[in-house]
Amino acid sequence: MPSDAPAIETLSPVDQKQFRGGMALLAAAVNLVTTAGPAGDGGFTASAVTSVTDDPATLLVCVRRNGSATPLVRTNGVVCVNTLAAGQEALSSAFGSSSGTLADRFALGEWTRLVTGAPVLRGAIANFDCRIAQVTEVGTHSVLFCQVLAVETLPEAAPLLYFNRAYRTI
Amino acid sequence: MPSDAPAIETLSPVDQKQFRGGMALLAAAVNLVTTAGPAGDGGFTASAVTSVTDDPATLLVCVRRNGSATPLVRTNGVVCVNTLAAGQEALSSAFGSSSGTLADRFALGEWTRLVTGAPVLRGAIANFDCRIAQVTEVGTHSVLFCQVLAVETLPEAAPLLYFNRAYRTI
Repeated sequence: MPSDAPAIETLSPVDQKQFRGGMALLAAAVNLVTTAGPAGDGGFTASAVTSVTDDPATLLVCVRRNGSATPLVRTNGVVCVNTLAAGQEALSSAFGSSSGTLADRFALGEWTRLVTGAPVLRGAIANFDCRIAQVTEVGTHSVLFCQVLAVETLPEAAPLLYFNRAYRTI
Repeated sequence: MPSDAPAIETLSPVDQKQFRGGMALLAAAVNLVTTAGPAGDGGFTASAVTSVTDDPATLLVCVRRNGSATPLVRTNGVVCVNTLAAGQEALSSAFGSSSGTLADRFALGEWTRLVTGAPVLRGAIANFDCRIAQVTEVGTHSVLFCQVLAVETLPEAAPLLYFNRAYRTI
């Protein structure tokens, strides 16, 4: 950097429009994150899910702090991350929307349980049944670090992706 | 849960093989994360990158704590996340490998700079030039929370994806 460049600490982050325009080009799998427990059942759609470490087996999920399912997830302390297969767009849209009842949304899928009791979606390409081990707050969002207690997979399925503001597959 | 089920806190996370088998089915964009500064230039390939919040514009990158580029990134305090386009597999493989010199790896691409000085890859589908604002340690990995100070995009490009242990595109 030239010595007359402004110090990096003084620069402002880009605005929402620029950020979202860039992030729209970061292709991602679509996940349905569900919970069950003392606070009740709930679920939401999330593309901000990644692997963190396999020792101990941990993934992360970013969630809006003021989302309606967030307090349920935090209180229950368990989630199932259901990674959607191509053809499961209707579930993604229903759980990503605020219209309709929770019962309507769950009626769109077939469910089972593994070890935590969180709803496990049949036909998903992968299910990760997790307990929340650690939470980091960043701006408007919480990052849930989740230890994976059970995994189911359907390796022959095609993945559902979100890219450039549209559902896609491979 | 039936009342005779084991308490969730007492359950062990799945083993590495089960975890990786599930995670292989979580399709992800491929990113080349670069840095520059007092500790020197460096870079590594990462698929564990997601949006966190647009207020302030923040993404996250998961990185192995003992990776060779990790101390550089931490000391420099800046990264550019270059989201690869289809056709940039050779860059991904070179920066994901420990063979060859750093100069050899950088020679595979054309580079520019934005505001932090970290190398910005031309032809990537998106570039996010960032300062590291916060770090969370989880097991073997560090999660870097990065404020996005500049964005470039190439919306007409196709994305490079990694799914089921192979490069793919849409």
